[in-house]
Amino acid sequence: MAAARPENLSVVVHRAGDLRLENRPVPEPGPNEVLLRIHSVGICGSDVHYWQNGRIGDFIVKKPMVLGHEASGTVIKVGSSVTHLKPGDRVAIEPGAPRDIDEFCKIGRYNLSPTIFFCATPPDDGNLCRYYAHNASFCYKLPDNVTFEEGALIEPLSVGIHACRRGGVTLGTKVLICGADLSASRLEKAKEIGADFTIEIKKETPQEVASMVQDLLGCMPEITVECSGAEASVQTGIYATRSGGTLVLVGLGPEMVHVPIVNAAVREVDIKGIFRYCNTWPMAISMLASKRVNIKSLVTHRFPLEKALEAFEATRKGEGVKVMLKCDPSDQNP
Amino acid sequence: MAAARPENLSVVVHRAGDLRLENRPVPEPGPNEVLLRIHSVGICGSDVHYWQNGRIGDFIVKKPMVLGHEASGTVIKVGSSVTHLKPGDRVAIEPGAPRDIDEFCKIGRYNLSPTIFFCATPPDDGNLCRYYAHNASFCYKLPDNVTFEEGALIEPLSVGIHACRRGGVTLGTKVLICGADLSASRLEKAKEIGADFTIEIKKETPQEVASMVQDLLGCMPEITVECSGAEASVQTGIYATRSGGTLVLVGLGPEMVHVPIVNAAVREVDIKGIFRYCNTWPMAISMLASKRVNIKSLVTHRFPLEKALEAFEATRKGEGVKVMLKCDPSDQNP
Amino acid sequence: MAAARPENLSVVVHRAGDLRLENRPVPEPGPNEVLLRIHSVGICGSDVHYWQNGRIGDFIVKKPMVLGHEASGTVIKVGSSVTHLKPGDRVAIEPGAPRDIDEFCKIGRYNLSPTIFFCATPPDDGNLCRYYAHNASFCYKLPDNVTFEEGALIEPLSVGIHACRRGGVTLGTKVLICGADLSASRLEKAKEIGADFTIEIKKETPQEVASMVQDLLGCMPEITVECSGAEASVQTGIYATRSGGTLVLVGLGPEMVHVPIVNAAVREVDIKGIFRYCNTWPMAISMLASKRVNIKSLVTHRFPLEKALEAFEATRKGEGVKVMLKCDPSDQNP
Amino acid sequence: MAAARPENLSVVVHRAGDLRLENRPVPEPGPNEVLLRIHSVGICGSDVHYWQNGRIGDFIVKKPMVLGHEASGTVIKVGSSVTHLKPGDRVAIEPGAPRDIDEFCKIGRYNLSPTIFFCATPPDDGNLCRYYAHNASFCYKLPDNVTFEEGALIEPLSVGIHACRRGGVTLGTKVLICGADLSASRLEKAKEIGADFTIEIKKETPQEVASMVQDLLGCMPEITVECSGAEASVQTGIYATRSGGTLVLVGLGPEMVHVPIVNAAVREVDIKGIFRYCNTWPMAISMLASKRVNIKSLVTHRFPLEKALEAFEATRKGEGVKVMLKCDPSDQNP
Repeated sequence: MAAARPENLSVVVHRAGDLRLENRPVPEPGPNEVLLRIHSVGICGSDVHYWQNGRIGDFIVKKPMVLGHEASGTVIKVGSSVTHLKPGDRVAIEPGAPRDIDEFCKIGRYNLSPTIFFCATPPDDGNLCRYYAHNASFCYKLPDNVTFEEGALIEPLSVGIHACRRGGVTLGTKVLICGADLSASRLEKAKEIGADFTIEIKKETPQEVASMVQDLLGCMPEITVECSGAEASVQTGIYATRSGGTLVLVGLGPEMVHVPIVNAAVREVDIKGIFRYCNTWPMAISMLASKRVNIKSLVTHRFPLEKALEAFEATRKGEGVKVMLKCDPSDQNP
Repeated sequence: MAAARPENLSVVVHRAGDLRLENRPVPEPGPNEVLLRIHSVGICGSDVHYWQNGRIGDFIVKKPMVLGHEASGTVIKVGSSVTHLKPGDRVAIEPGAPRDIDEFCKIGRYNLSPTIFFCATPPDDGNLCRYYAHNASFCYKLPDNVTFEEGALIEPLSVGIHACRRGGVTLGTKVLICGADLSASRLEKAKEIGADFTIEIKKETPQEVASMVQDLLGCMPEITVECSGAEASVQTGIYATRSGGTLVLVGLGPEMVHVPIVNAAVREVDIKGIFRYCNTWPMAISMLASKRVNIKSLVTHRFPLEKALEAFEATRKGEGVKVMLKCDPSDQNP
Repeated sequence: MAAARPENLSVVVHRAGDLRLENRPVPEPGPNEVLLRIHSVGICGSDVHYWQNGRIGDFIVKKPMVLGHEASGTVIKVGSSVTHLKPGDRVAIEPGAPRDIDEFCKIGRYNLSPTIFFCATPPDDGNLCRYYAHNASFCYKLPDNVTFEEGALIEPLSVGIHACRRGGVTLGTKVLICGADLSASRLEKAKEIGADFTIEIKKETPQEVASMVQDLLGCMPEITVECSGAEASVQTGIYATRSGGTLVLVGLGPEMVHVPIVNAAVREVDIKGIFRYCNTWPMAISMLASKRVNIKSLVTHRFPLEKALEAFEATRKGEGVKVMLKCDPSDQNP
Repeated sequence: MAAARPENLSVVVHRAGDLRLENRPVPEPGPNEVLLRIHSVGICGSDVHYWQNGRIGDFIVKKPMVLGHEASGTVIKVGSSVTHLKPGDRVAIEPGAPRDIDEFCKIGRYNLSPTIFFCATPPDDGNLCRYYAHNASFCYKLPDNVTFEEGALIEPLSVGIHACRRGGVTLGTKVLICGADLSASRLEKAKEIGADFTIEIKKETPQEVASMVQDLLGCMPEITVECSGAEASVQTGIYATRSGGTLVLVGLGPEMVHVPIVNAAVREVDIKGIFRYCNTWPMAISMLASKRVNIKSLVTHRFPLEKALEAFEATRKGEGVKVMLKCDPSDQNP
């Protein structure tokens, strides 16, 4: 069978600036793994960053690494201990799978486990390829009414879910989202997909922005989700959030920032960051299956895997919103 | 009866530097109030601050204000609607009593209510006097085995309880408390009342302190309670806290501080401040009645109310730990 | 002005079976109250129950009582201490307003306060009348895009919100709702307004129903909301709920029921009841203002206040879903 | 080396009434396991039950099974992937170790995982033997000031910790513990180790007991921990618990019980059971290391492993509180 198996075309970064399409062996799934025929993989900003810079912070590409961590595909083989999946199952892949049942894993916050395996974070290979083996416990069956591309988009959606959970967002919560507020076109997109109000920031101080937000809403937002990492925006997040509320930090900017800590402290505005996500795939799949959430429209570009370098170039240039690579030559549908 | 009523000696700050002992009328309790014969009142740093500076932040002494908010006493008269207290009951006084059932009050976080009455925060009078009327719902009956001075000490104890609750401290939690770490004598006191380890900081950087803490404990603390407000100490609190843990800000320092926000965010170390406290008196009374917590030894100085100015002078000089004023001429016991 | 004031037509239950339309004086708002011109009031099962039986459990109609607690209206006068509302404001009325800041109120669970005022629970008068004065803190301003009838429907909606909060329902949660499952027409309505699946129960045992639910969903529901109070349905709720999940009891049936307590205990399925609700109006208003929730269609019958007895008769017969009384002769719109 | 290895004396139940001391092979630790020289093992009621009845509910002894799950010992060999332990480390053993990272494991409630390995629950062997291999992630290093017997007692202590966590017990909480209340001698013991009050129940109804509790405490307890499983006691737990509080079910009695569900529901008294425990060992070790908790005195009998049958007989007769088996011939100290 191995002889008949097709080659495993993969997108591999070798070092900063050196991105290659190359053939790798098709992996054999371990006892707790499933082998997948990958269908769709979204390109993330971090993939481009590894290609351009060869590193993100302390994570350094020291040996060739397959990129990609927003993926879905079809099970084609299951490891000996796997019982909940079978060949033919369509699945979304959670790219982080803990290696050890450590203290973080035990309390349900496995994303904080320092030894976690994570696709396309050096030195762990990602899944931007044709065939990929993954921990079966972190592959989630997709219902028939959820497409492969929606399955791949669960990864970026999970960041939003985790941020909302950490902040305590629920139905009816007033939320300020900072981060698109310098760009008229992004604000337009935000409005299109659900924002009630948008503010384009020009030269206003953080306090002024906070006051504009309060005027617009008729009250202060209970939760602010900061997505840029910019110092001024973090400050805005503190001033703008209602007493007793939460500022969630999603964007990462400079390591050290100046913050009005007394203002946050005496109003009991909590400051909480996020590191990736945990326990989001089941909720995301339910949301998508319910058809109450529409994320399909975020995919603006599609390329076959063979044209991955072109796709990365488009992403680097900031074209569109989400670029999707189609890894299954026999099915390039969404 | 009013004719027979004794004078109401009170400690009143008129403006910065102008502290007076003067007689004020004995108040008449409103329908929801109780009139108390005050027994013991601790002097707080904020009392001294109002005396020395006439203000704390935006709270400015614009008209003469009675000081004091760490108090206990005996009910001598109850308002027409009061049913849970009667003359003769010994009570501890929670100094903050909301005026409005606003959104904060409704969700159980009444300390955040912007219109709350609070003893000795301008313009609200405190209870450093002989007779004082207070919202009966915020007067808590003391069991026989809890002294008046313990009752008065519930106020500062409440700050600790609220900080621990906000941080999620429970039995067995590893906690780092920052704030006494520049003073050998305070560290000695900390050790005496329960600290397992102490570190005296000299020139170490925040990262170095964090690493010393980890070496001492054999692990990173789950929760850090920062009590100084100093920038370096806030930074230490972030570096030192275990991933997924919480840094509680109790100390208030400069309005803006430089913090390693990315370090906190990607390790999901939450940053939470406190504003006074809420719902702490019942727990504090249970703790004191159980005799598992000993706070009596914190009272190092006692003065009769008539010598209040002397007592304030001693406090200003930093003598002892807690200075207690004895307001009932007929009972000066603890 | 009092001379010019119109009469205050009110729906009053005198004793079991004795319901009258009568004129009562227009009340004068207290310092913390607002006087409202009532617009729309929904009839609740409990209103009919007081009329038919003169009591619900220990709550007994001992003197004539105005019915109604699902109401909205317009502020026409404000008490001396009221600052957040003004004449002309359109408001929804939360019928429960605590009289005392007791232990339950302080922790944000004021619905449990034993001395709470509650519209149309003896001996407290309700608001099925033309003019009604209510605690201003429990009147919530309606946005322009929320109708008076939606405002009145916030009361029954609040029961659902409180149940969901107690159970921990969030986006993507799988929820089993028990209570309409004996009636094909109710199940049809449930499907119409959002249920993904429905099951009509015939002679199945609780375990069999639990197993049917699991087969339908492909997994056990995380949360069950039991709305009938029937013993078999409570049992079903336990068997059907996923380990670690919650059974919320909304329906009230016999005082004592037989339950498979060991099954619940060893699977850590929590059993939680609800008593009315708390802190739901702001969330409900946000939900309605967002237009993501449609409750308008639940109103199937409307009567002018003058025809209240007819409206009660229709409700008693079980006609339609929600019967609405229109109390403002000058505006009978939704 | 295997030749030199001592025999592995083990306590094995073959079927109801058939308990044997026999030699088994010394196991070889897997990659994630450690091999332990067992030091102390407490006998649990469930061990006796398997011996006497050959089953507990659906868990049936179908093949010979080593008993014991309250154990501590010393690491003598580590698997190839183990990094946090080394030979010579003294450890306490958490007997439940999940086999799969399933949905329960991922959210931090691994005790609910249906495929969990658990010592001495059929068909999984326990650790009442000389040499035992266990998942290294579920072996916890003991500090020098915690004895092996304290290490073994962490297992029963964990039940109490988990129950308190589920109920929300914290410092100052008023707790009613039901279950020793028919036995004067057990009540004496309870008082000795910390109970403030005890009540010996004779013929009182559940409501009468609830009222006695309230009289004794001066208020209703916020949390009740029911440890008998008896129907009357579960009923007492509901009536006695304060509105908004929690009844925790620890004791297991008849499968179906009659409960006053409406009383619980309308007062929002939550009913929560426990299944074993999770995430308790680190907290327990901190508690024991702090010397604030004294559990040593619970060990009333000790037997060398060779006399295990005698020890089981003593336990079956109800002699003493906790019987400890000493498995290391070279160290029979506590």
